[in-house]
Amino acid sequence: MSEGALKVALLGCGVVGSQVVRLLGEQADDLAARVGAPVELAGVAVRRLGRRRDAEIDPALLTTDAEALVTRDDVDIVVEVIGGIEPARSLILSAMAHGKSVVTANKALLAEDGATVHGAARTHGSDLYFEASVAGAIPLLRPLRESMAGDHVRRVLGIVNGTTNYILDKMDSTGASFADALEEAQALGYAEADPTADVEGFDAAAKAAILAGIAFHSRVTAADVHREGITEISAADVASARAMGYVIKLLAICARSDDGRSIGVRVHPAMIPRSHPLAGVREAYNAVFVEARSAGRLMFYGAGAGGAPTASAVLGDIVAVGRNRLARTRGPEESTYADLRVHPMGDTVTRYHVSLDVADKPGVLARVAETFARHDVSIQTVQQEGRGDDARLVLVTHRASDAALSATIEELRDLDIVRAVAGLMRVEGDDTP
Amino acid sequence: MSEGALKVALLGCGVVGSQVVRLLGEQADDLAARVGAPVELAGVAVRRLGRRRDAEIDPALLTTDAEALVTRDDVDIVVEVIGGIEPARSLILSAMAHGKSVVTANKALLAEDGATVHGAARTHGSDLYFEASVAGAIPLLRPLRESMAGDHVRRVLGIVNGTTNYILDKMDSTGASFADALEEAQALGYAEADPTADVEGFDAAAKAAILAGIAFHSRVTAADVHREGITEISAADVASARAMGYVIKLLAICARSDDGRSIGVRVHPAMIPRSHPLAGVREAYNAVFVEARSAGRLMFYGAGAGGAPTASAVLGDIVAVGRNRLARTRGPEESTYADLRVHPMGDTVTRYHVSLDVADKPGVLARVAETFARHDVSIQTVQQEGRGDDARLVLVTHRASDAALSATIEELRDLDIVRAVAGLMRVEGDDTP
Repeated sequence: MSEGALKVALLGCGVVGSQVVRLLGEQADDLAARVGAPVELAGVAVRRLGRRRDAEIDPALLTTDAEALVTRDDVDIVVEVIGGIEPARSLILSAMAHGKSVVTANKALLAEDGATVHGAARTHGSDLYFEASVAGAIPLLRPLRESMAGDHVRRVLGIVNGTTNYILDKMDSTGASFADALEEAQALGYAEADPTADVEGFDAAAKAAILAGIAFHSRVTAADVHREGITEISAADVASARAMGYVIKLLAICARSDDGRSIGVRVHPAMIPRSHPLAGVREAYNAVFVEARSAGRLMFYGAGAGGAPTASAVLGDIVAVGRNRLARTRGPEESTYADLRVHPMGDTVTRYHVSLDVADKPGVLARVAETFARHDVSIQTVQQEGRGDDARLVLVTHRASDAALSATIEELRDLDIVRAVAGLMRVEGDDTP
Repeated sequence: MSEGALKVALLGCGVVGSQVVRLLGEQADDLAARVGAPVELAGVAVRRLGRRRDAEIDPALLTTDAEALVTRDDVDIVVEVIGGIEPARSLILSAMAHGKSVVTANKALLAEDGATVHGAARTHGSDLYFEASVAGAIPLLRPLRESMAGDHVRRVLGIVNGTTNYILDKMDSTGASFADALEEAQALGYAEADPTADVEGFDAAAKAAILAGIAFHSRVTAADVHREGITEISAADVASARAMGYVIKLLAICARSDDGRSIGVRVHPAMIPRSHPLAGVREAYNAVFVEARSAGRLMFYGAGAGGAPTASAVLGDIVAVGRNRLARTRGPEESTYADLRVHPMGDTVTRYHVSLDVADKPGVLARVAETFARHDVSIQTVQQEGRGDDARLVLVTHRASDAALSATIEELRDLDIVRAVAGLMRVEGDDTP
């Protein structure tokens, strides 16, 4: 062990952890030059010692006693890539209490109980870096926290879950059903055997909470995020969007209200115009669009998951906290001074695409239009497809509140002339008012 | 003036400077919360006092004595947005010698004499931040210096000049000539009356030098950059590229050699496939593609110039150096430890698109192919267009060195069967070997 080296304790040695081990070894010389001191692995906490791993690790470094590892005197930096709430939270808190800097990729913990973890960092004067928790290798949190610190963010609109983007992209490009696209994603390793966290939007919601908190200098938790998944999206929905020049994406959207006094944070499938830069994000890639008052529109694009890309973000954070330790300083703390309220989904203002199966007789459009008008939802375009029993009205609204739209839809369902609400989806990324 | 406020001296009050003044005022509360102390304008150095300006400035703050301003005891941060080598360099050096932190947008100075400025920052322990010098509002230098500090960058490929991208985009989308597109860009304020710095690639070359230095931890100057502009691009070149599924962009390319021991840094027009993410960068937008060993492919996209976007980057840097001053620390220093050599353009390996006007008679293709083979340039595709006097051979090569290609072209020009080399352009962003 080198004199003056920075010692890293790694918690977890799965897909990401084994890449962290590999890169700490392969890039040791570069890391030493960039940090200003060698960076060495002090130990790796795992659940079982005997397991086969992707990285070659000196068996003497492995331990099942994570608590002992994070409190060891010679450890400087604790890297947590276990995921989930416990034991990750307890280990991070223990590490901070013992003066360690922490690097984590744990979106669930930060989104569900960020207050505890950030609070401990403040109390103990610890560094807490978590670039890898959102959008894998894409530098996003540091640019938002630091590069844009002199700007006023209006909206963050992103594709932050690779699994669902892969599925929706397949549905769009091949016409596949959700079930078939999911099966393909599972076969290729893009989706897990139990795909719930991805396809129901839980993963994206955690990331949305973290992004919103940073972008708007407020405390946002996963519970604040309105969440809808993609399991109900049909091949017909995708085809209908395509015919209108749109593509369906699962979006995480964090936006200030029009009066600037609150924020909305939501994850749901939405139609975006094919000309929008996010429409071109294919396969399992991620991309995040940021709209700020002075900077205008920025986009960050890259691999949002995977062992090596996520490890790249972890290593960037290790270099940062390593430099901070040598300089006896800390990176920026959590910033929640703006303390903006998260408004309920009903207050969200956006546009809607509505398909109605209707009776084909005179006066239908008038009654439908009147129902929208009664709720102050203004219609931008309407067109009738088919005739007779197959008649369908396809409407796109101007911006309206989610509450008004919901009330409209409820009333439409009760009309005798409306046989069914065949489709309902929000429209985003389109500047029409 | 507040007790404990950070005082900013602004050098220059043109397009960017006036936006910096405006934002320091409008966002004073947010800046104070984010930095941890109020940020106040101490003075603004201008060439002439009487001029009309975009921002409202207290006349008492204006001075023509920049040297006195940067050395004033109460000034903490000097923001230089004058541009050019002198007096910017002397003022920055003087500011550092007097213990000030420096934020600059000056790409010319950093690319031409970065050694002096970075050296002074090291000597005096000053912060030197320059995010605004490359790609305006797009967070790029901080992600490369910090987020990717644990990765190994292979290549940086970017559109870093908005003027030329606007011109080439117009030529591509409307079929306009270079002269007409330039005129339109000038009418819209995207190009200056003397467009040389943009259309001849000087602006992009300065940015390429800065990007290469940071990405590869080496010292790179503007003189190291191979530079070709876009003035020779004809509407026919653009149409021909379009017909083949390509679009012509002015690219800044910084890449490691195949053996990793040297780097190539170049700015020139190139054909890229329409499916490449950079192909979709329209109008005056900028975008930079980064390929790294672990992170894979990342792209950063946004407004590359303009008063407010550039000021956004300047303000982000002001927040960073402000936080550093309060914490009595500094940001990362220039990193040149890798000290990679910049190889000559002849050693650059890429692909080429070549159009030859030839005599339409038997044996022509064989003689052309033989000439390529003699220089070890392998042909990927060849097709003949037209017949008789209008016969043209269009070839795309596999990867070859620029020196080998140049020698091939020289020999082709001497062949009696080749009437003219009608087109010659590098092909980038295509993974074909």
